[in-house]
Amino acid sequence: MTTLVFGHKSPDTDSTGSPIVWAWYLNQIKGVEARPVLLGEPNTEAAFVLERWNLDKPEILSDLESGQEVVIVDTNNPGELPANINEANITGIIDHHRLVGGLETRGPIEIDIQPLACTATIMWKKIGKDWAQAPREIKGAALSCILSDTLEFRSPTTTQEDKAIAYSIAEELGVDMSAYAEEMFAAKSDVSAFSEAELLRMDSKEFDLDGTGLRVSVLETTSPAPLLARKKALMAAMPDVAKADGAAEVLLFIVDILKEEATLLIPNDRVKRIAERSFDATVEGDHVVLPGVMSRKKQIIPNLKM
Amino acid sequence: MTTLVFGHKSPDTDSTGSPIVWAWYLNQIKGVEARPVLLGEPNTEAAFVLERWNLDKPEILSDLESGQEVVIVDTNNPGELPANINEANITGIIDHHRLVGGLETRGPIEIDIQPLACTATIMWKKIGKDWAQAPREIKGAALSCILSDTLEFRSPTTTQEDKAIAYSIAEELGVDMSAYAEEMFAAKSDVSAFSEAELLRMDSKEFDLDGTGLRVSVLETTSPAPLLARKKALMAAMPDVAKADGAAEVLLFIVDILKEEATLLIPNDRVKRIAERSFDATVEGDHVVLPGVMSRKKQIIPNLKM
Repeated sequence: MTTLVFGHKSPDTDSTGSPIVWAWYLNQIKGVEARPVLLGEPNTEAAFVLERWNLDKPEILSDLESGQEVVIVDTNNPGELPANINEANITGIIDHHRLVGGLETRGPIEIDIQPLACTATIMWKKIGKDWAQAPREIKGAALSCILSDTLEFRSPTTTQEDKAIAYSIAEELGVDMSAYAEEMFAAKSDVSAFSEAELLRMDSKEFDLDGTGLRVSVLETTSPAPLLARKKALMAAMPDVAKADGAAEVLLFIVDILKEEATLLIPNDRVKRIAERSFDATVEGDHVVLPGVMSRKKQIIPNLKM
Repeated sequence: MTTLVFGHKSPDTDSTGSPIVWAWYLNQIKGVEARPVLLGEPNTEAAFVLERWNLDKPEILSDLESGQEVVIVDTNNPGELPANINEANITGIIDHHRLVGGLETRGPIEIDIQPLACTATIMWKKIGKDWAQAPREIKGAALSCILSDTLEFRSPTTTQEDKAIAYSIAEELGVDMSAYAEEMFAAKSDVSAFSEAELLRMDSKEFDLDGTGLRVSVLETTSPAPLLARKKALMAAMPDVAKADGAAEVLLFIVDILKEEATLLIPNDRVKRIAERSFDATVEGDHVVLPGVMSRKKQIIPNLKM
């Protein structure tokens, strides 16, 4: 049986590139037949990365058969995976997020979760000396994952390991890392084709805050202006998105990668209170700028208060 | 804050020795203040190992404070851990069991689960070259864990890695592995001091089989005769133990380490049916011998059928 390797349902660069890296490793080094798949349409940055490295866009999985062998990467959250994930035969998990509980495996398997910025960094460590056998496009995918998840080392989730590995891959490939990261971020910033509801769900995690369900959405961009120009339409779309997804509120953080700050939209008094209590901010009007805030994992989620 | 390192609530040799090994590593190599603790009285084999290597018996933990930093080893099952485990600050998990779901961490942490026979084997791999700095008693603890969990390599859970690491430690310590394993198993086999209810819970896992709760208990021994002589008393104690623990049945497997077989007690028709359907056996009378069956994880749990 071919093992399917996939990340979460909103494929960003790490959830698109890491399955490609790991499926290569399983096929070429471990002799395990494997295929990367996606659980949704890749975002604009991930699509750019596939094209840049001449990688085939993995098939988008619509259904998971019971007993299917799968390796899950870049998440351990059943909510971000197919509904019947626990009927699959999970044979490996590689991730860098907090353990949320809920995944079950049939027997003991290899699970490697590390507090690094990027799944591909963990894979690079696991692949070790066999990495030398990887073709350019696989190395390019890994480099892209690290640059994306670290926002070119600007995110506070960045570790020395992420950074050192990215530098070493870039040098080997002869890639100008800053220029390449700029191209990636420009691709990610081109969100003109998306509806407001799509933008609110594009990079979003559900989070339960003292019994209140929040959809915590982040849009990382090098050009916040077009997004801020759609502020009113984005806020108008929030109630329907929240209702459809069973959340009380949508918190939308527009992260300016270059200025290293986030703008949180304030559609109502409850979000205003959350913003003031969570980030020690004074909110006036329909948005608030949070200097230095770039990471949902490190700076947003841990600070949220009702 | 001192990090507490512990295994599960029924400390066998791996759940006693591995916390000692890991606390040594955190203290001496990683510079993290750490202390091994137990969540229950160690079994007779684990007590023997502590004495043999002049290791202090770790304190038995009665209560876990909210926010306490902990590293969990040899389990990932909340049912085998303090009730408030998810209020602790879990900073690491090292284990070799199937993921059962239920543990949550506050942030991304290091989780290393591998399909090896023993937690100490995973630790040996993680400690790597720093292992050279370990004192004799720490190496002795690790060796004991591997010999215990593999039943001196007789268990089908044994991997080449477990075996190779045990041989290398034994050689370095100048320990006659077979003679030492024999002493360990003799200690484990001396269960005369325990009541029937204690024996039924000594090495036991709860397992849900199609909605029926089973307590799957194993007693590994080199001298099954004294246990089999208590067969009727053990079966008489089962209904009360099952009821108190919210299970429908207790399945007690007496594993003869040397003959490499298990004897399953048959207290009633339901257990008889489970035995016949699960192990393709013909049951007559109050017990059935299952040749080759030694591992709950590999041979018992995966085969259970109602």
